[in-house]
Amino acid sequence: MTLLDAPLVVASNRGPVTFERDEQGGLEAGRGAGGLVTALLGALQRVDGLWVAAAISETDRDVAAGPGGGRIDMEAFGADYRLRLLDVPAELYDGYYNGISNGVLWFAHHYLWDTVRQPVFGEETERAWQDYVAVNRLFAEALAEEAERSSTLPAFLVQDYHLTLVPRLLRELRPDAFIAHFSHTAIAGLTYLRILPGRIREGMLRGMLGADVLGFHSQLWAENFLMSARSLPGVRADLARSRLTVDGREVMVRIHPISIDAMPMREAAAGPEVQEFRRELNRWRGDTRLILRVDRLELTKNIVRGFRAYELFLQTHPEWRRRVRFLALLSPSRVDVPEYREYGDECVAEVERVNRELGEEDWRPIEVRVRDDYPGAIAAYGLYDVLLVNPTFDGMNLVAMEGPMLNRRGGVLVLSRNAGAYWRLGKHAIAVNPFDVQETAEAIAHALEMPHEERLRRARNLSRLVLTNPPERWVRSQLEDLQRASIRRPVAGA
Amino acid sequence: MTLLDAPLVVASNRGPVTFERDEQGGLEAGRGAGGLVTALLGALQRVDGLWVAAAISETDRDVAAGPGGGRIDMEAFGADYRLRLLDVPAELYDGYYNGISNGVLWFAHHYLWDTVRQPVFGEETERAWQDYVAVNRLFAEALAEEAERSSTLPAFLVQDYHLTLVPRLLRELRPDAFIAHFSHTAIAGLTYLRILPGRIREGMLRGMLGADVLGFHSQLWAENFLMSARSLPGVRADLARSRLTVDGREVMVRIHPISIDAMPMREAAAGPEVQEFRRELNRWRGDTRLILRVDRLELTKNIVRGFRAYELFLQTHPEWRRRVRFLALLSPSRVDVPEYREYGDECVAEVERVNRELGEEDWRPIEVRVRDDYPGAIAAYGLYDVLLVNPTFDGMNLVAMEGPMLNRRGGVLVLSRNAGAYWRLGKHAIAVNPFDVQETAEAIAHALEMPHEERLRRARNLSRLVLTNPPERWVRSQLEDLQRASIRRPVAGA
Repeated sequence: MTLLDAPLVVASNRGPVTFERDEQGGLEAGRGAGGLVTALLGALQRVDGLWVAAAISETDRDVAAGPGGGRIDMEAFGADYRLRLLDVPAELYDGYYNGISNGVLWFAHHYLWDTVRQPVFGEETERAWQDYVAVNRLFAEALAEEAERSSTLPAFLVQDYHLTLVPRLLRELRPDAFIAHFSHTAIAGLTYLRILPGRIREGMLRGMLGADVLGFHSQLWAENFLMSARSLPGVRADLARSRLTVDGREVMVRIHPISIDAMPMREAAAGPEVQEFRRELNRWRGDTRLILRVDRLELTKNIVRGFRAYELFLQTHPEWRRRVRFLALLSPSRVDVPEYREYGDECVAEVERVNRELGEEDWRPIEVRVRDDYPGAIAAYGLYDVLLVNPTFDGMNLVAMEGPMLNRRGGVLVLSRNAGAYWRLGKHAIAVNPFDVQETAEAIAHALEMPHEERLRRARNLSRLVLTNPPERWVRSQLEDLQRASIRRPVAGA
Repeated sequence: MTLLDAPLVVASNRGPVTFERDEQGGLEAGRGAGGLVTALLGALQRVDGLWVAAAISETDRDVAAGPGGGRIDMEAFGADYRLRLLDVPAELYDGYYNGISNGVLWFAHHYLWDTVRQPVFGEETERAWQDYVAVNRLFAEALAEEAERSSTLPAFLVQDYHLTLVPRLLRELRPDAFIAHFSHTAIAGLTYLRILPGRIREGMLRGMLGADVLGFHSQLWAENFLMSARSLPGVRADLARSRLTVDGREVMVRIHPISIDAMPMREAAAGPEVQEFRRELNRWRGDTRLILRVDRLELTKNIVRGFRAYELFLQTHPEWRRRVRFLALLSPSRVDVPEYREYGDECVAEVERVNRELGEEDWRPIEVRVRDDYPGAIAAYGLYDVLLVNPTFDGMNLVAMEGPMLNRRGGVLVLSRNAGAYWRLGKHAIAVNPFDVQETAEAIAHALEMPHEERLRRARNLSRLVLTNPPERWVRSQLEDLQRASIRRPVAGA
């Protein structure tokens, strides 16, 4: 047997479902969306796999604290895998999730700090770090337990920046484990990571190095990790082969861009709710061209500069006034974090300013909608002429794939060079430096004025690239890497 | 003849002297301070060298526009070298100096942007970049002219981020030239440099690659340059040997930490003005211990977090209240830039807050003086018990050397791990993460409570390290590198 057929255990902060109570008090499973969940669930169901995640909702916590130790057979919910929800104490979860994961690591990897003033690390950071360590340990212990219960040693797929310590902690408990860790975020360079307290920086890097295989969405993030890891005492790097050696073990660094799951999105696009939205949007747009952005209201998404670029485009190409509209669909994100609320206000204020300064009686240049609206986004994807995806830094960016897959008008993708997606899709998009509003304004003009033939050709190429890289391939690649790593491993000893 | 004896031509934005008119209308040369000027002047005077710089003052401009084409024999001012002042048109100088050098490159290399909001590049940036190119071309043309006038091909030493394009432009004019470029700043990593418009990033990197030898103050900056340069198409890197190959030419990347010139500072310290200051400071401090910081009021110097660390130290070590004072000598810098004025206000406000919250009737915890006060700094260097040097990022930091060289009390250096000086002095200092106020507070306590023996040992070691690396060695090392490069160069062909 190879690791390609081994039992599979996935670990991530948030699981594939969240439970609520229905009116009869029974359990109701709300499924998460996204390529990651689809890809991993597909793989899990083939091998009767297990997903380990933190309990999120109240009901999740009830389940996690219940008699089964948080273990649920998902057969009752029409799926062929098992779930284990970890009952992470609320007093640890806050430091782990808000304090370190989203407050420190996310900010670091996306260059989000105004370094003159932020961050200011102190005792609070240290306490949150202890919580992060504790929660990562809970995960590692649960994974080791699951390994004990399994007759065959499973393949572990650990996800993202919340769980950077799990590979090392699990390795300590099970030196023979086969562990892959995947980072879905950007990864900051060596110098910027020096902002982090040494314990956190080194903890994170050495934690990840406990894995056999480390995966990233793009070359830039993989190289940044390699360069930081090789600066640690005792770590040797073979940059040409993208391998690190630490404690006599070998760690492979690999690039596997994830993609999206076409089928359910296309089904949703054909549904009546989306069709109604599409009619509504079509009435609203009239005979104008449509520029679209779809984003979480996230600091990295570069929403304000997007509006400024559009404004500059209208100023320098006045012939396009009244002939174009900008629709911004923004879903609220981390609303309990002041920086995010403030940024949301800035985005809306910028829209109001542009509309006030450039709008005319029957033409509002920008329409912004701040709400969770999946059907609305699906509908809008079908209709755009230009899709603006201009994040300052972004691990991957799935909007850049969802749009081209659902668009029906030969819409053009304007894409930031700092999105992971750029490495795969860049040559069929119009590339921009997200900090350069002039370049972005010109890219919008270029996209709108592109000959029909070229638009179609680019759109077809984008759509094909997305479809030929289904999410299953992303999982499969990681298992193949683990298999390769297992062959290269001298002897699996305790 | 080797390049060690070749005629020497130095190029820098600001020259070693600035001219003013005396009362009779004659020229008066005001000498700049600093190890750089001393080191380079020493070298120039040995070989009847030439220094090319931009005209800065009104009188400089008169000289530059005068009949000699800006060439001045400094013999008239008691020195044995020649100066050539370039008459850079004011309309170019602003974009070159404020726009690109200090507004873009300085911010980039020190991670100074609040990336959610800043920078916003547009047409103005592009115009400023054209000015930067034009001024760099003026320098390159002047250097090529000087090469023509010289019977032997000189060694060119080009300085800093203002003149990154000069090596390449000069190389185009004189393919046989021997060119060293030295960066005195930090150098940002590959990912952060992606913030820059592609033309600027690539222009800067390829401009520097026109040199035979590129010098940096510390390994971190040298490695960051190497990694960015090797990402350019057509550039190959030999990381182990710290060499790049571009256009068939070889470029050496070298680390040469600069030091300071002890003698004139020690002479100044013995002068009557400084002695008077010292008496005044001694009266003011009474029998308290003295924590000192001496800095330009610069965004990278991390002054506010320094005060917060001191506040935290007083809160967690109340036994030190009334027994210690913090003296901050801050010289105004770039006061016409709003970000700098704002930061100055924040620094002063922070001092007022701490003094209000922790001060007592006859004890003010912090004394801040915002003015140019060289004698005051020299006096204070003699007296500190703790010298706080905690920049967020700093190419080198000479305060960390000036202090230990002049201190007479076995004062302890608390030093940021992100200062270039850390690579040389770190092991005799108490190292801190500049973003971690708790670690910095503990470092202050540690420094104050350190046994006398250990304080003296560290202070002696620091002072010895500074004295055994005189500025001449810094110049000499660069010339030796150029000599090595000239031997490795296949054939000097046009």
